Amino acid sequence: MKSWLPIPPRSHFSILNIPFGIISSKDKLRHRPAVAIGSHILDLDAFATGGGFKKAANVSSDHLWVFSQPTLNAFAELGRPFHRAVRSYLQDVLSNSTSHSDVLRDHEELRNASLRSLSDVTLHIPFAIGDYTDFFAGRNHAYNLGVLFRGPANALQPNYCHLPVAYHGRASSVVVSGTSLRRPWGQALPAPGATEPVFRPSARLDIELEMGMFICRPNSLGAPIPIKEADEYIFGYVLLNDWSARDIQQWEYVPLGPFNAKNFGTSISPWVVLADALEPFRTKGLDNEVQLQNYLREGRSDNVLDIQLEVSLSADGGGETIITRTSSKNLLWSWPQMIAHHSISGCNLRPGDLLGSGTISGTEAGTHGSLIEQTQGGKTPIKLSDGQERKFIEDGDTVIIRGWAGEQDGELVGFGECVGQIVTPVSL
Amino acid sequence: MKSWLPIPPRSHFSILNIPFGIISSKDKLRHRPAVAIGSHILDLDAFATGGGFKKAANVSSDHLWVFSQPTLNAFAELGRPFHRAVRSYLQDVLSNSTSHSDVLRDHEELRNASLRSLSDVTLHIPFAIGDYTDFFAGRNHAYNLGVLFRGPANALQPNYCHLPVAYHGRASSVVVSGTSLRRPWGQALPAPGATEPVFRPSARLDIELEMGMFICRPNSLGAPIPIKEADEYIFGYVLLNDWSARDIQQWEYVPLGPFNAKNFGTSISPWVVLADALEPFRTKGLDNEVQLQNYLREGRSDNVLDIQLEVSLSADGGGETIITRTSSKNLLWSWPQMIAHHSISGCNLRPGDLLGSGTISGTEAGTHGSLIEQTQGGKTPIKLSDGQERKFIEDGDTVIIRGWAGEQDGELVGFGECVGQIVTPVSL
Repeated sequence: MKSWLPIPPRSHFSILNIPFGIISSKDKLRHRPAVAIGSHILDLDAFATGGGFKKAANVSSDHLWVFSQPTLNAFAELGRPFHRAVRSYLQDVLSNSTSHSDVLRDHEELRNASLRSLSDVTLHIPFAIGDYTDFFAGRNHAYNLGVLFRGPANALQPNYCHLPVAYHGRASSVVVSGTSLRRPWGQALPAPGATEPVFRPSARLDIELEMGMFICRPNSLGAPIPIKEADEYIFGYVLLNDWSARDIQQWEYVPLGPFNAKNFGTSISPWVVLADALEPFRTKGLDNEVQLQNYLREGRSDNVLDIQLEVSLSADGGGETIITRTSSKNLLWSWPQMIAHHSISGCNLRPGDLLGSGTISGTEAGTHGSLIEQTQGGKTPIKLSDGQERKFIEDGDTVIIRGWAGEQDGELVGFGECVGQIVTPVSL
Repeated sequence: MKSWLPIPPRSHFSILNIPFGIISSKDKLRHRPAVAIGSHILDLDAFATGGGFKKAANVSSDHLWVFSQPTLNAFAELGRPFHRAVRSYLQDVLSNSTSHSDVLRDHEELRNASLRSLSDVTLHIPFAIGDYTDFFAGRNHAYNLGVLFRGPANALQPNYCHLPVAYHGRASSVVVSGTSLRRPWGQALPAPGATEPVFRPSARLDIELEMGMFICRPNSLGAPIPIKEADEYIFGYVLLNDWSARDIQQWEYVPLGPFNAKNFGTSISPWVVLADALEPFRTKGLDNEVQLQNYLREGRSDNVLDIQLEVSLSADGGGETIITRTSSKNLLWSWPQMIAHHSISGCNLRPGDLLGSGTISGTEAGTHGSLIEQTQGGKTPIKLSDGQERKFIEDGDTVIIRGWAGEQDGELVGFGECVGQIVTPVSL
């Protein structure tokens, strides 16, 4: 497949990708769906209105209303066969020498109305998120934190390998890449061994490198999703930064888990890469030493995705330093296992629900998805390229997560960037 | 105040109450707002359409669209002064000898269109809930559980009296009173000391007697709500049953808190009692032994509500046994304190968000809001009036929570009932 549009060879948005997002533009403020292709976007609202889907075999006029909605929820709810049909048709439209190459390429009016430069549009949160759940599926991260807090002998909790541990997160504060977040205030113990908390802006603000996944299909309350059917509930994936105030978390989290340490903000990348686009990048996850309950057995070993992940840090106005390089395959639990476990109680998932993977870390230095791991609990600072040191995130720091699958020029299936800057705390 | 409508003297829905809910009826399936009055409801959609608000000084025609919405979110978002004006006007309309007594009483057509028997309508979930947060503000409950798990010396965790502990709950599975819930499946340890989990329907299914509160006003991300302003964010209250699978919880909850043990369902009562209606029932909460951080100091001692609460259990088809009698004043933390703490990180609340109080228990036998407390961890069964015993909830059991404030005939401000039945687990 090759596009008639000029696509930079290392673009994350090759013709093999076709990720979905929500845009607005100065001349058309209404939020609406689009796909990214190279350095362009295709405005699906304008494309649909202009008759662009007329030749699409599996897209009827009854479906076109979903392309004028302000979020992807309605599109997602139409199900994976529909997403597949739309993606495949758009690949045809954007490719040379297919039966639909002419639809856009040869029709100036439609092209002018719907094809824009990526730099001309504003990207918005892609879904109205019903519930956000964050898992803890990164085994190396769980182990590394366990070593810091409890030593290597008891690093993993007894339940860790038996079920995908998770907590309910805060949906209201999930923000799209580019949104700045204020450093949170909260209670924390001033020093190890202290018993009286102090009230201050977090002094140990951290990042968590994660993947996020959006649900496209609902299950009824009381009806668990069988693991063999779980793939059909997956719309697609984003990059996710689960910002964490470690000092607030340490004081508040017993016995009900993290709360204010996490709910001040979670950043996600704007383009949602469809599950189908990542099918070619399946691989084997981390080995699990225990015998799993039936409801968690998938019957396949290539059950996680191999997405290259990179975290950069840029001190106020300065250049970027890559502080993490790892892969999303460093998970003990797959997305179908997370879905099966989440719903085994009868809990109902809804289209637009967001699931986070948990922090993704490798085992070597330079592969850790959080600063608390990289600095061994804030003891050993990391060095930035401009000579500065960091134990945790400082005001003005910008964190950029990048992720992509594939290697060949013109064939990358990537997410672009998930960017977030931490700014000074509010005055109280 | 006395109504021209016949109101049963012990009705929870006296003229002093005027709670808001969402109804539908056989002849008009559309969900729409209503208020309850005695054994009747006033359909606000029909009342507004029929000109019922024409004489309301502070309700302009621009506001009337909120009474045709399928949830209370839009009404709530108009703010407490508006809720106050609407409630006060409806009290006038429903009372004898006020300047607006004639509006409904003397207009048969409007009365026929909007006034119905409560038994003729179906009640629905009152809000589209954005996020659901459950606190742990019932100090006696926290203490009782602590004694069971850790003994009296360390019953309360070190953070407990310093901040209102909470976790993010599951919004999708909050259901209205009357909705049956299936007993959840999950992993649990088969016996104390076991290390390998089994997979089974929960064997220790419990209730949690709570109050719920709906938010009516948003704060911006990054902007904490000052405690002195927190009252303006409170729309009103419901009864809440936070069903809990204790065996699943015990195995899953370290280190990130309860997940599947709670997310299979949370029941709430259908009528939301406005904050204003409960102002006369303020009282002093439980004493706190620590010096609070400024952001949690209210400067008033009558900061909790005195609502009489009662829990009944009915075994399959049998009569009710009252198993709990207590008051909502058994809280260490007030609603304004919960709001101030929830947002101190910068977390944004949205109209329609639901906050739970945590389990409300007294200190004596017969005042505990959960079975795990009443049966001392499942050791001592309680007796039902039909001679049956219960350690935890069995299939077919129905739990009914009732709550009301006030004592005199014709002056009760109550919630009606929050009913839920547990039915057999799904076949897997």
